[in-house]
Amino acid sequence: MSHNTFGHLFRVTTFGESHGPAIGCVIDGCPPLIPVSEAEIQVFLDRRRPGRSRHTSQRREADKVKILSGVFDNGEGRQVTTGTPIALVIGNTDQRPKDYGEIKDKFRPGHADFTYEEKYGIRDYRGGGRQSARETAMRVAAGALARNVVPYMRVRGALIQLGPHRIERERWDWGEVDKNPFFCPDPQAAKHWEGYLDQIRKAGSSCGAVIEVVIEGVPAGLGAPVYAKLDQDLASALMSINAVKGVEIGAGFEAAALTGEENADEMRMKRGKPVFLSNKAGGILGGISTGQDIVARFAVKPTSSILSPRRTVDRAGRNTEIVTKGRHDPCVGIRAVPVGEAMAACVIADHYLRHRAQMGRGGGDLS
Amino acid sequence: MSHNTFGHLFRVTTFGESHGPAIGCVIDGCPPLIPVSEAEIQVFLDRRRPGRSRHTSQRREADKVKILSGVFDNGEGRQVTTGTPIALVIGNTDQRPKDYGEIKDKFRPGHADFTYEEKYGIRDYRGGGRQSARETAMRVAAGALARNVVPYMRVRGALIQLGPHRIERERWDWGEVDKNPFFCPDPQAAKHWEGYLDQIRKAGSSCGAVIEVVIEGVPAGLGAPVYAKLDQDLASALMSINAVKGVEIGAGFEAAALTGEENADEMRMKRGKPVFLSNKAGGILGGISTGQDIVARFAVKPTSSILSPRRTVDRAGRNTEIVTKGRHDPCVGIRAVPVGEAMAACVIADHYLRHRAQMGRGGGDLS
Amino acid sequence: MSHNTFGHLFRVTTFGESHGPAIGCVIDGCPPLIPVSEAEIQVFLDRRRPGRSRHTSQRREADKVKILSGVFDNGEGRQVTTGTPIALVIGNTDQRPKDYGEIKDKFRPGHADFTYEEKYGIRDYRGGGRQSARETAMRVAAGALARNVVPYMRVRGALIQLGPHRIERERWDWGEVDKNPFFCPDPQAAKHWEGYLDQIRKAGSSCGAVIEVVIEGVPAGLGAPVYAKLDQDLASALMSINAVKGVEIGAGFEAAALTGEENADEMRMKRGKPVFLSNKAGGILGGISTGQDIVARFAVKPTSSILSPRRTVDRAGRNTEIVTKGRHDPCVGIRAVPVGEAMAACVIADHYLRHRAQMGRGGGDLS
Amino acid sequence: MSHNTFGHLFRVTTFGESHGPAIGCVIDGCPPLIPVSEAEIQVFLDRRRPGRSRHTSQRREADKVKILSGVFDNGEGRQVTTGTPIALVIGNTDQRPKDYGEIKDKFRPGHADFTYEEKYGIRDYRGGGRQSARETAMRVAAGALARNVVPYMRVRGALIQLGPHRIERERWDWGEVDKNPFFCPDPQAAKHWEGYLDQIRKAGSSCGAVIEVVIEGVPAGLGAPVYAKLDQDLASALMSINAVKGVEIGAGFEAAALTGEENADEMRMKRGKPVFLSNKAGGILGGISTGQDIVARFAVKPTSSILSPRRTVDRAGRNTEIVTKGRHDPCVGIRAVPVGEAMAACVIADHYLRHRAQMGRGGGDLS
Repeated sequence: MSHNTFGHLFRVTTFGESHGPAIGCVIDGCPPLIPVSEAEIQVFLDRRRPGRSRHTSQRREADKVKILSGVFDNGEGRQVTTGTPIALVIGNTDQRPKDYGEIKDKFRPGHADFTYEEKYGIRDYRGGGRQSARETAMRVAAGALARNVVPYMRVRGALIQLGPHRIERERWDWGEVDKNPFFCPDPQAAKHWEGYLDQIRKAGSSCGAVIEVVIEGVPAGLGAPVYAKLDQDLASALMSINAVKGVEIGAGFEAAALTGEENADEMRMKRGKPVFLSNKAGGILGGISTGQDIVARFAVKPTSSILSPRRTVDRAGRNTEIVTKGRHDPCVGIRAVPVGEAMAACVIADHYLRHRAQMGRGGGDLS
Repeated sequence: MSHNTFGHLFRVTTFGESHGPAIGCVIDGCPPLIPVSEAEIQVFLDRRRPGRSRHTSQRREADKVKILSGVFDNGEGRQVTTGTPIALVIGNTDQRPKDYGEIKDKFRPGHADFTYEEKYGIRDYRGGGRQSARETAMRVAAGALARNVVPYMRVRGALIQLGPHRIERERWDWGEVDKNPFFCPDPQAAKHWEGYLDQIRKAGSSCGAVIEVVIEGVPAGLGAPVYAKLDQDLASALMSINAVKGVEIGAGFEAAALTGEENADEMRMKRGKPVFLSNKAGGILGGISTGQDIVARFAVKPTSSILSPRRTVDRAGRNTEIVTKGRHDPCVGIRAVPVGEAMAACVIADHYLRHRAQMGRGGGDLS
Repeated sequence: MSHNTFGHLFRVTTFGESHGPAIGCVIDGCPPLIPVSEAEIQVFLDRRRPGRSRHTSQRREADKVKILSGVFDNGEGRQVTTGTPIALVIGNTDQRPKDYGEIKDKFRPGHADFTYEEKYGIRDYRGGGRQSARETAMRVAAGALARNVVPYMRVRGALIQLGPHRIERERWDWGEVDKNPFFCPDPQAAKHWEGYLDQIRKAGSSCGAVIEVVIEGVPAGLGAPVYAKLDQDLASALMSINAVKGVEIGAGFEAAALTGEENADEMRMKRGKPVFLSNKAGGILGGISTGQDIVARFAVKPTSSILSPRRTVDRAGRNTEIVTKGRHDPCVGIRAVPVGEAMAACVIADHYLRHRAQMGRGGGDLS
Repeated sequence: MSHNTFGHLFRVTTFGESHGPAIGCVIDGCPPLIPVSEAEIQVFLDRRRPGRSRHTSQRREADKVKILSGVFDNGEGRQVTTGTPIALVIGNTDQRPKDYGEIKDKFRPGHADFTYEEKYGIRDYRGGGRQSARETAMRVAAGALARNVVPYMRVRGALIQLGPHRIERERWDWGEVDKNPFFCPDPQAAKHWEGYLDQIRKAGSSCGAVIEVVIEGVPAGLGAPVYAKLDQDLASALMSINAVKGVEIGAGFEAAALTGEENADEMRMKRGKPVFLSNKAGGILGGISTGQDIVARFAVKPTSSILSPRRTVDRAGRNTEIVTKGRHDPCVGIRAVPVGEAMAACVIADHYLRHRAQMGRGGGDLS
């Protein structure tokens, strides 16, 4: 039982505060001989890095990852895991000494300042300390490794709603996702969002978002009844991302309004294999993967750091107001896309190992 | 790491299949001297029991719970926990010998028949075996105990949407919840739902639902960063309930469409204590309770067992059709209300113990 | 984290008190399709059952095990596991109503009466409640299943010291173990022990013992650095048995007196495979199995329930004396032999599944 | 479930290889407001550091610890924990580029070279990689923090046997322990050992040792039945230390030769409190602390790295010999003293938090 670890067999423990010397993680339980290098992890970190467009925070963090352990030459010049814990660190470079006065003593609405103070009686207030979304960089790093653990798995995410504006599903094009600053699969929506978000940012305001993650190549049989359900662990993993307020699988909340006939994913044999004729289930039945694409969505609340003054109280118990200055993302949902992908990858990797444990090579469709 | 256990310090392990000799659970980690008796648990089990109205399954299960261990006389004639594991069992009484032929060989769409078969290569097909929602009786039993672990906590649930029909929030009256067969807090909606569900049932169809759970009396400070967030564990617990496809906290998915100004729960001092002026956060900030009501919602898909024939395949790999006869709930969401309450109670009890571990009596607001 | 569970992937949770309605366990994580039946488990339970000779307790417990879940017909008339939790119960039959007065209020030296009272403020004093060695019946039952999980594994135990009397290793004959009431592999020692233990028993006294467990057929590669060492988990499992005060692996405490030259298990190729020329290591190097026999020993203290009056205090804080009457084993170490075997089997089964998780079929010598 | 983590609520995850860039650990679950600084941890690290006398390895490792996270100013200039994960690292400074040829391809008897290779199919052979006792530096660092978690606790260790030479218990003087290079409490024995170990070292040989750890100030009530016994967790923790082959509590293996009368720790009231008249139990009954001193011993095998050539095989499956050159400890047991203390401190800290979780302030003797 750990507060800062996720996963059971593919375990990731993160540490570090926003303005301390470094953030980092330890990945334990990873199989040996999985290819990994700093450069390969960096590719994913760079997708999450701030300052890639005017639509994300202008903070400058190089986010250069360093591998401290668990990796060795496989004898052919390739860096691979050895089966021992892999420690990764990222130095914090953009910690300019500044006056933390306001944030030190006032509780920012929507932030965890008040609850950390209530819980611990002390908090590292510099840049949000441990509550900072900077921690998610380590999730992305761990996810980069997780992707290599499950053969044939492909994990992709996309922003499908920015503020109140949804994409059109019929225009979905995965090829567009990396061509706009929103990870948006609908080029028309992306265009429209540019103007919308400029307006939000200039007003010192913020907005929320909805992200969809799709995982292809997951064999049927991963997950387990009744408290190790794949959807349950995805819900837990995605809800653990900063600012997330909702998670759904497949048809999700819309399933409530369907009839049993509409919701049933019927089956047929196709080239000697059973296939489903639809995917309302989002690739999971009874907590176990069906072999279809796994589809999960999560909602991110608007960034709590805004320029409009908000009423709050301070540590001394006085009424006051606060304006959260700084270089904030007008929509934290955008950079949550690679984070959601990474969490999903880690969950599948974990269940892949769990399945191997119980089934060995004799059972399931991994054999 | 366990497939059939939930909770970390207040741990519940369930066992049993729908048509085996019994279902049961073991609750470990419960503090000693907590009052509990078979009669007190039975009250909650009776709320979940089938056959209480024409709107739920007409199966007859007495669901009589028996305590096997962990409870002793406190010296004053009161049954209390002793700090050792509490085992509960419920005998399965309504297992009429019948022909399981169809369900034995065909995969019912929306059920876990196919995925269990893929995973394990064997399954107890009688009544759904381990995938049966009958398992949730043990969650309700464990929840009855969890309610007594956290002082001042009150956990209540309500059905807020049946099929496509939502309640009106302004008509919400907790006093109505136990006066209609739907656990509906809006008497007008309940009236309307009667006709709607009669129609669904007579057509051999089914519908989904949305449930809201409200937890009062949770002190500020429960939960923990960054992978032991209270909302994360609630999401996991609620998503683990059969047929659940979505979970949200506070404003949930609607938060995505809000601005930062709209979403901020501002604070003011009131009678010497900090209070929030709204509760978009659903009582949780940074994964830690704020002291406000905790508000969670979850969506249940329509019952997969319906009378309309659905296309499917059988174990031999042949195309076929199936009609799921039997005494099924037209909306499994109704009986999910006491289950959702129980899961929420267990999560809070677990975090209450976790908080005590790290804080002792010197810290937090439990002192 | 659980007080009443052992194992990580092959997890056993036990419950029940000595004089409650039943004791039982839930085994979670067991692979599917493992053959198991009540009759097969019973064979092992019968070895641990009291009253098999005049040298063990004359209590009468039928110890009849009942399977409540997790087992199903494999389609060919064989009962096998399904991959879901296996619950086992044994009813307590020999609970004659009696006066628990003395044991209720006085702390028996060497027993856990005082510490339970200090910890919990309440205890089920009837027959020792949860501290009773009756709990070990469930370990033996779980061990019976664990033996079938690891192919080719054979787990055997023997009593090698009774009170101060050791066996002679050169007379070791596994065939003798089940031919005397001590599980003693040295027929001459067994003969001698009869007289010794008669004398101890008639004097109302008791004595301790040392047990050796040997596990054959464990492939090289099980276990893991640095906190999942196979010897560490064996030490934990054996030390958790009632009355155990010491555990050692291979040369054990004697290794302290050896030189590096004496202690080195040298290696040589033999029929194309590396073999060790000795086994001072007890089959484990760096926490990982070498492929040799695994050898563990544990020391059991003398039964604390004796007829000589001992000084103690009571719950009211008064000096007093106590004589522990009843049908006690003069040497609890004897019946600890099948318990030690069972714990060892469970540890290996757990690590076998852990190894499969990390290695899959590509690595290690399980492929 | 983790291979590189120990503890449940006070959790320590270590990482790093002997000759990688750094070793480190993450401590999670530590209460907030516990005083800690690099200097305070360093004191304990320095006791374990090599090269402090001619009797330990002449390797030069500064072993300078650096805190990366989880510590903050308490507002009064004191560094304290914040309740978030504490990451510690120690850079590896003495990694001279050298020819690892022999150790790369040959399996050193007594080392884990063969078993790592069998398990993982790859290993970082430089300096033993992850199997190196260098990892124990992080245990000592974590133990330094654990000591501050439990009020009034004092953990001390001593070498009581070097090779075949035992100390005399009646000469035990804790004040002597830090006055000789052996952590020996008996000044006469220490004198004698100097000559003995000089001889061993000059011969290129090695010897084993026995260490005793005594923990004072542990309140009654820590530990739990039946698989969270305090002695069980101590056994696991001590057995996880490199080269340990046996663990015992209180009278340990000698208890086997005692009668029930001799082994009973009788009780009497003394100044209104129950006290024990002896401590054969080593401070633990039924797995729960009695309030007496906790006494544990562990045996360390002789250093496997010796200068006499030993027969072995290489990776290619050829018979060969190996001589392990380098700067090795003639008796690794000496530097195991601070490691044993640290592990014991961590186990007690863990159970202290576990006790608080289940009992709160209402129960046990912590109130």
